[in-house]
Amino acid sequence: MRRKWSGMTMMRIEILNTGTELLLGSTRNTHGTWIGQELVKLGLRVQRQVTVPDGIAIEEALNEATHRSDVVLVTGGLGPTSDDITREATAKVLGVELIEDEESLRSLHEFFTKRNKPMVDANLKQAQNLVGADILPNNNGTAPGIYAPPRLGGEPSCAVFLLPGPPRELYPMFHDEVVPRLKALAGVEAIDTVQELKFVGIGESDFHEQLDEDLAKIDGLEVGYCARLGEVDLRLIGSNEVITKGRELTEACFKEFMVSDDGSDLETVVVKGLVALGKTLATAESCTGGLVANRITNVRGASAVFTHGFVTYSNEAKAQLIGVSEETLASYGAVSEEVAGEMASGARATSGADIAVSITGIAGPDGGTEDKPVGTVCFGISSKDGIQTYREIHPRSRLDFKQQASQRALDLVRRLLASD
Amino acid sequence: MRRKWSGMTMMRIEILNTGTELLLGSTRNTHGTWIGQELVKLGLRVQRQVTVPDGIAIEEALNEATHRSDVVLVTGGLGPTSDDITREATAKVLGVELIEDEESLRSLHEFFTKRNKPMVDANLKQAQNLVGADILPNNNGTAPGIYAPPRLGGEPSCAVFLLPGPPRELYPMFHDEVVPRLKALAGVEAIDTVQELKFVGIGESDFHEQLDEDLAKIDGLEVGYCARLGEVDLRLIGSNEVITKGRELTEACFKEFMVSDDGSDLETVVVKGLVALGKTLATAESCTGGLVANRITNVRGASAVFTHGFVTYSNEAKAQLIGVSEETLASYGAVSEEVAGEMASGARATSGADIAVSITGIAGPDGGTEDKPVGTVCFGISSKDGIQTYREIHPRSRLDFKQQASQRALDLVRRLLASD
Repeated sequence: MRRKWSGMTMMRIEILNTGTELLLGSTRNTHGTWIGQELVKLGLRVQRQVTVPDGIAIEEALNEATHRSDVVLVTGGLGPTSDDITREATAKVLGVELIEDEESLRSLHEFFTKRNKPMVDANLKQAQNLVGADILPNNNGTAPGIYAPPRLGGEPSCAVFLLPGPPRELYPMFHDEVVPRLKALAGVEAIDTVQELKFVGIGESDFHEQLDEDLAKIDGLEVGYCARLGEVDLRLIGSNEVITKGRELTEACFKEFMVSDDGSDLETVVVKGLVALGKTLATAESCTGGLVANRITNVRGASAVFTHGFVTYSNEAKAQLIGVSEETLASYGAVSEEVAGEMASGARATSGADIAVSITGIAGPDGGTEDKPVGTVCFGISSKDGIQTYREIHPRSRLDFKQQASQRALDLVRRLLASD
Repeated sequence: MRRKWSGMTMMRIEILNTGTELLLGSTRNTHGTWIGQELVKLGLRVQRQVTVPDGIAIEEALNEATHRSDVVLVTGGLGPTSDDITREATAKVLGVELIEDEESLRSLHEFFTKRNKPMVDANLKQAQNLVGADILPNNNGTAPGIYAPPRLGGEPSCAVFLLPGPPRELYPMFHDEVVPRLKALAGVEAIDTVQELKFVGIGESDFHEQLDEDLAKIDGLEVGYCARLGEVDLRLIGSNEVITKGRELTEACFKEFMVSDDGSDLETVVVKGLVALGKTLATAESCTGGLVANRITNVRGASAVFTHGFVTYSNEAKAQLIGVSEETLASYGAVSEEVAGEMASGARATSGADIAVSITGIAGPDGGTEDKPVGTVCFGISSKDGIQTYREIHPRSRLDFKQQASQRALDLVRRLLASD
């Protein structure tokens, strides 16, 4: 959707990703996507994204980019090996020298000491900075970032950020160090507001059919969708007033499907809900193989509400660990609402948890039958109020199927908590 | 790292992706990745990938690309709407006219008739071709592709492919129409080989210290590294002969850490190893919360070798489900080699599996002590040959810690299988 600018000048921002593996296709370029999304939240836009292999190609590409754009965000090539030459290339393009940064060197030594590992000479170059540039601290790796303000070496009048490649290093550095500087460069404190509403259980086409036209009538409101597996994020950008209008319209349509309004993911909402109500949860997973437990334990503080996870991949495990009856397994098959129900009630009884959720299905690619094709999945949820079971079909690839099923299982818990 | 070509001329190939949604981050750029992979299979390489928004930016970018490269693959912008201007921009850049292609027009009419839909005027421009260029038929959509051979309009001497954006249209057209033309342009059947070796348990700096220099001495061998959490991929590119040399050198240094030589990930190697030896595995996870079980069950066919997964997040669950003694928990604490050992042997006994692996640790950010800081993790592995335990520290973010610990646990299983 085209941006309606509220009177501000547009900064021309370019992303330069370095990494041979990105061009070989062996690694997906997720940086470009992620940075694009983060900039949209600031009301800013990427005008071009370029990927070059490791090595000298970066110099040519950076030279072009700095003469074309106001801001260039470079990712990758800050590591210790011989093909990591982003610092050197930038020094050449901007016409400034590299010097050793004492603070960075100290941090590097500290990083290796903490991990009881020797620091090798190759790491030394990671402590180099461009003369006059800012060092951007990296708390998650050895490579600090660098910020070269406009006209550092005279020309060009372009700001350059050098950022590490690994997402776990890039993301926090972007939020802590890049965002404030971008805001200052853009000359505004906050450009509009962004609200992200997350929905589970409906698809993007539901929004198009039932809501899109009405939202488009709200003047000054920018609307964006991001559809993920089993999830749609709706992004509202504009003044507080128009965002409120947009949100009211949206809730009138889809309130029961709305999981969060602050970007929180489903597992975080579930854990927070359990904590708030002082309830505990157990999981009994067959086809998802531990994915639901894994997602729950990704949330900080999960140990207060999650005690037992059963990954009962075989029929024997279902009977032995959570008391599914052999008769039920024989009569209905492992993938049935009957077994899902017994899995949930058995997991609840064994663990003593307040709520137990179960999943059993056929992830594929093998194991489907005419009656129960690949993608068939049954759910059970057990609480003091009884047991509910569900049967659905999600004919997808093995990993997508697991993700979609885990999404549904977590949403069953969310809905149960919401009704409490 | 710079390519040392083995005596052949390298075609410079560039990808130009158009689409505002790619820069907003609302759609992932999967074309770049996919085309990169397909070209590697042909022994060819992408030298640069550029993304621009829909609209006039494509003209600037295409002009640069055609003067820099031998082949430009453009995706997107062939649709019927006003921002689809790839054809027009290419005509300008190459200096040739557009004409209506009769065969394309006939196909378009047929497409709409088949679907019982009216063809609108906007679709007419999809039947336009560059004078002298080839039409690339599209059996899956309305937009045919276009191939402009080198020097179509005199200069530049660059071949340009215009391809549709939707993957279901792009992929078959690429295979049927683009691949044969690329082979003809490259003047060879197949070039070079790529081998990817995956290592767990050593870091990129180990390669730099012990191997990098020696590999660099092999003439005609290109070497690349990609470091992931708890994993390093080494990429060797060149003739079969130099790859064999490089691999021999690498194995002499790091054979015990090598997980695969065909791109297989650690969990796939573990499942295949279990299948090959006819052994079963059980997992007992505390801090990783089901991640190890989840990774194992991501592998097709895991159900043959994996039956029981215990996510014993609380002390009670550790005692109740896999018989860790209350005394051991009280004396040594849940995060100890003693408890890890009992978790592994208890999981093995309860499940009847041949091998059981256990993980217990402090994922953080809370829960650390001076004696056992956040990041402390203990592992146990139990088999007919007895129990081994390990203690390590990985001070990382919660999710990275979990990933790193799961990597180590899977690698313990891999090593046990390899020693069998």
